[in-house]
Amino acid sequence: MARILKGAEVVSALHAQLTPQVEALKAKGVLPTLAIVRVGARQDDVAYEKGATKRAETLGVAVRTFLLDEGATQAELLATIQAINADDAIHGVLLFRPLPKRMDDESVRAALLPEKDIDGITDGSLAGVFTGTRRGFPPCTAQACMEILNYYRIPVSGRNAVVIGRSLVVGKPVAMMLLQQNATVTVCHTKTQDMPSVTKQADILIVAAGRAGVVGADYVSAGQTVIDVGINFTPEGAMVGDADFAAIEPIVGAITPVPGGVGTVTTTVLIAHVIEAAQRSIKRG
Amino acid sequence: MARILKGAEVVSALHAQLTPQVEALKAKGVLPTLAIVRVGARQDDVAYEKGATKRAETLGVAVRTFLLDEGATQAELLATIQAINADDAIHGVLLFRPLPKRMDDESVRAALLPEKDIDGITDGSLAGVFTGTRRGFPPCTAQACMEILNYYRIPVSGRNAVVIGRSLVVGKPVAMMLLQQNATVTVCHTKTQDMPSVTKQADILIVAAGRAGVVGADYVSAGQTVIDVGINFTPEGAMVGDADFAAIEPIVGAITPVPGGVGTVTTTVLIAHVIEAAQRSIKRG
Repeated sequence: MARILKGAEVVSALHAQLTPQVEALKAKGVLPTLAIVRVGARQDDVAYEKGATKRAETLGVAVRTFLLDEGATQAELLATIQAINADDAIHGVLLFRPLPKRMDDESVRAALLPEKDIDGITDGSLAGVFTGTRRGFPPCTAQACMEILNYYRIPVSGRNAVVIGRSLVVGKPVAMMLLQQNATVTVCHTKTQDMPSVTKQADILIVAAGRAGVVGADYVSAGQTVIDVGINFTPEGAMVGDADFAAIEPIVGAITPVPGGVGTVTTTVLIAHVIEAAQRSIKRG
Repeated sequence: MARILKGAEVVSALHAQLTPQVEALKAKGVLPTLAIVRVGARQDDVAYEKGATKRAETLGVAVRTFLLDEGATQAELLATIQAINADDAIHGVLLFRPLPKRMDDESVRAALLPEKDIDGITDGSLAGVFTGTRRGFPPCTAQACMEILNYYRIPVSGRNAVVIGRSLVVGKPVAMMLLQQNATVTVCHTKTQDMPSVTKQADILIVAAGRAGVVGADYVSAGQTVIDVGINFTPEGAMVGDADFAAIEPIVGAITPVPGGVGTVTTTVLIAHVIEAAQRSIKRG
């Protein structure tokens, strides 16, 4: 029987830290504010936006949404971003991606003021994650994994961490963050040969493969901590992770559930970044 | 008896590719030009500068050196960088680091125009390495490792690559470049426990520990390719790598010598970046 690493407990602990920080900002006349920029109405985006908005409200952080029609031009999106950049009352921006294919992702990302980039999409934030400095902000999902390890006091330094997946939103940044905390880090992916022989040696296994059931009983061993980043839906509509929870939970030492694991923590990290961006804006004066 | 992966052969092959590119640039009236910026006269820097200058001359690339006194201020260094940025006849900049402690490394790096950053020190280049795009330029030493693997046709995709060291000039960037070529990549470092058990499983072992003799016979196994990035000097003044060459050469499948391995290729990569920067400057017009 594995220990179930519930996101809700991590969220509660983060809320306890964040609430007085929001109060302190408000006492200084600063209302931490998140701008959400969305082109079109993809179902995933709308669901995430709803969660983020609710979390922001709970913490007393304001949200302003900027919705562009699905047919909007890149020039319209850039104008929206520039207006947000110029607005001192907005501290952080969540820009839903992937953008429509007709738009140039790099140009759009580059338009965002780095200090408002709370989800790690600008060069400054990416370089910060790569170099291990606290410039910019790391992608929220990657940081959510680290917050779970930290809250449940899972030792990282000197341990073997294996990451399945090499995306820029989870795999690569979480690998860098684990390395920064002195783990020995291995990154696996679709081209990895005999993945179970690699993953079985992990003390910490981060699963961000993006496909349901990738990690079965043959991938894990006793005592491991498994962090499942996956969000998938069965034909019946049930939300499941990338790991086969029923098969591996009896084997490993600890595991995050889906739903109720990483995803639960991600929106809180997002709001935490807005609060930190507001704090930094005061320091800059 | 391991196959000895000599840098000189890689350099010859690169020269054959680069020479017509320089001629094509000159035919368009562009003389590819490297600026070398050095504060003080550290022995390592002077030796590297000498090698780079010689390599540039061989390839018909011009070099302009900007030497600042050891006591120079940060303002003086920034003014030098700004003058170089503004000079359209200069395509790439080699800035020796570490800078004197009184200077702020981040501010100085940020001052350099990203398109002239041929040694991967700006946020743009670092983000490019991290995201696996050909924006900016990767650090030359990291790329030299990849050039050696490529020239000697060492398979990378699907193989286990282990990197010892996590610096920003070699360890982290070479890990990202190996990942980009579909290796399964593990990064080890001083906090790694039982390193031999990890390194023995590598198909490709990149040694960038920064200390002589770190990798002995117990770290390696038959058939491996070992790329030794280390440059150290014995008390007698002999140049040696981070691997104990005499001990591991009889075991592994292939190994780079020191001297005559990675270091030999690095200056050629540097000059290749200057040439590419000049080509890009024409495209930008």
